[in-house]
Amino acid sequence: MSQIHIVALAGSTRKDSYNKTLIRVAAQLAEESGARVTLLDLTNFPMPIFDGDLESGQGLPAKAAEFKRILDTADAFVIASPEYNASVSGVLKNALDWASRAGAVEGSVFSGKPALLLSASPGGLGGLRGLNHLRDILLNLGAFPFNQQLAIPSAHEAFEDGGLKDRLTHERLSQLIMEFGSYASKLQIQEPALR
Amino acid sequence: MSQIHIVALAGSTRKDSYNKTLIRVAAQLAEESGARVTLLDLTNFPMPIFDGDLESGQGLPAKAAEFKRILDTADAFVIASPEYNASVSGVLKNALDWASRAGAVEGSVFSGKPALLLSASPGGLGGLRGLNHLRDILLNLGAFPFNQQLAIPSAHEAFEDGGLKDRLTHERLSQLIMEFGSYASKLQIQEPALR
Amino acid sequence: MSQIHIVALAGSTRKDSYNKTLIRVAAQLAEESGARVTLLDLTNFPMPIFDGDLESGQGLPAKAAEFKRILDTADAFVIASPEYNASVSGVLKNALDWASRAGAVEGSVFSGKPALLLSASPGGLGGLRGLNHLRDILLNLGAFPFNQQLAIPSAHEAFEDGGLKDRLTHERLSQLIMEFGSYASKLQIQEPALR
Amino acid sequence: MSQIHIVALAGSTRKDSYNKTLIRVAAQLAEESGARVTLLDLTNFPMPIFDGDLESGQGLPAKAAEFKRILDTADAFVIASPEYNASVSGVLKNALDWASRAGAVEGSVFSGKPALLLSASPGGLGGLRGLNHLRDILLNLGAFPFNQQLAIPSAHEAFEDGGLKDRLTHERLSQLIMEFGSYASKLQIQEPALR
Repeated sequence: MSQIHIVALAGSTRKDSYNKTLIRVAAQLAEESGARVTLLDLTNFPMPIFDGDLESGQGLPAKAAEFKRILDTADAFVIASPEYNASVSGVLKNALDWASRAGAVEGSVFSGKPALLLSASPGGLGGLRGLNHLRDILLNLGAFPFNQQLAIPSAHEAFEDGGLKDRLTHERLSQLIMEFGSYASKLQIQEPALR
Repeated sequence: MSQIHIVALAGSTRKDSYNKTLIRVAAQLAEESGARVTLLDLTNFPMPIFDGDLESGQGLPAKAAEFKRILDTADAFVIASPEYNASVSGVLKNALDWASRAGAVEGSVFSGKPALLLSASPGGLGGLRGLNHLRDILLNLGAFPFNQQLAIPSAHEAFEDGGLKDRLTHERLSQLIMEFGSYASKLQIQEPALR
Repeated sequence: MSQIHIVALAGSTRKDSYNKTLIRVAAQLAEESGARVTLLDLTNFPMPIFDGDLESGQGLPAKAAEFKRILDTADAFVIASPEYNASVSGVLKNALDWASRAGAVEGSVFSGKPALLLSASPGGLGGLRGLNHLRDILLNLGAFPFNQQLAIPSAHEAFEDGGLKDRLTHERLSQLIMEFGSYASKLQIQEPALR
Repeated sequence: MSQIHIVALAGSTRKDSYNKTLIRVAAQLAEESGARVTLLDLTNFPMPIFDGDLESGQGLPAKAAEFKRILDTADAFVIASPEYNASVSGVLKNALDWASRAGAVEGSVFSGKPALLLSASPGGLGGLRGLNHLRDILLNLGAFPFNQQLAIPSAHEAFEDGGLKDRLTHERLSQLIMEFGSYASKLQIQEPALR
């Protein structure tokens, strides 16, 4: 199977974000399973909050353009999304909104690309409700959100030394990454090659 | 590309159901695009309303078992779902619930199988809210609901002579069926064949 | 505060249903807080699966009419809903669908009436996803789903002697019932009486 | 009935935002129905994108504190929310997130307060999917999202001279505001006054 290129990011800019830790674990597992991974940190892509007048006046901000160009190179996405008030974080929503606007690259950077949704949250549901919203958003952007996902509850106790404490959760994530990689690889096939 | 087998059904037992008409149009388009299609009519699969005690006592009812065996032969599903009170119909929910229970065949009959969601409704949203619920249900069953869907509003005026009156809607459906077929074919690939 | 009349039901017909146990606990708490409660068992309201042709031919089935007449007497509802495949049970959806159709009583039996949503499920989420769907359905029917709800996970271990084992969960339910009763009482006020 | 205080805002900072126009119409109707209305423009409350480290270091930003103090004075909310990528705008999500954090005032500024959801969008669904997410968010914040809402499609053709072109839509909004006002007034009643 040809190597796929995954762009991985967390929907948080906090330095010690549980979701940053989670996306690093996921990115490493994806590399171990044979994918090429570009790990983005939204901290490095500060963008103004989207405003239609700002866009009309100045076009895509430089960091949004840079972000969009990197997303454009992806075959697939892995996103670890914190849950704020039963939805995605403002920083993730804003970055996805800018990346959905015209400019920097031609066409949609999401369309037809598989996306794996992960979350970690101190609460008992693990950020599940945020993933429901993220799934809706990615569907609207034309991506293929993978049918399975992983929401890790009690996130404040879930990580140790940059990894997942619980062996079963780690194995679940590892298995999920492999299945997602297989799904993403299949979707990447050009049809004539199938015949 | 090897031929895929689609099981198509409408979530209604009404004789002149808009969704029965819609699924017939979709089934024909799928056949024209090269798929093999089995078109089911839920009218032919009368099942009792699911009840845990009934299941414990008698197992899977005969018609549920027959329904499940046919779903098991599918590579992919196309479902045209009416919207009742912002959700799926009771008859569709009940059939899917029985088909998710143990018996008749081994394992899940949904898992890993792509599903295309269609709806027609007299209302202005075309049954969209019912499809949101159907998507959740199919995700939970392990299927891959396709990212695009079609919800046809003003269904009482949408059909004529067993087809869609509006040419653009017909073309949109035709295009959607082709894209879904391509998606389903890719997912059906066995990985070793890719190398 | 004038006494309110609550119609309470579980979305299951299984004899030892967790949700039947839960609704009995809730009904008793509601009575203790001063409400009049009618506890329905869907087992006593067997209805055919909704079908538009059946309705056209025979109108509302007798049991659906009886069910609807009782709902019509309610000031408020409490529903304990099992989760089947990330949604409500077929038996509950079907009963609500019939009750939303014309016949037996004038007008909607749901419109403007508060509804408290409860669930119990063996899974880790307690039936939460089913409640999301039930909330959508009740909103569409014109009811006022209460903003707080209770989803009890690990339902197979949650009950003992017809009550909730865990004292904190029992207190949470008791508090919820009181707050819902207060909400329902306020909504019942006729405006001229306020002046 | 005692006068209620409504805080009204649009989820957009664009100068000619459809949702700003819509919220102005709604605010005027609310005043005409007897409410006191404070109309906020998010343009006047520029806040950094929420970041946990920023919050730990500096606490609530000044504009977020000012925003939160005004929300705290509300008995009820009316929000007109644009839809970006099937969800709420980043600017609205971010403002609500900051307002849900500790600081400036004691307790939650949303809890127990009714909220009316409106939207206008150039698309055919009128921003409906954004309202679904906004409803989830407000529920999580402890508010009471009103069961009815209004999503205005083809927003680019819907307004004229600062008002709604279509008389029926205007009347629908007017009726909705009155019904919401009645709901909000009832919820505001202190129980002892009822006896």
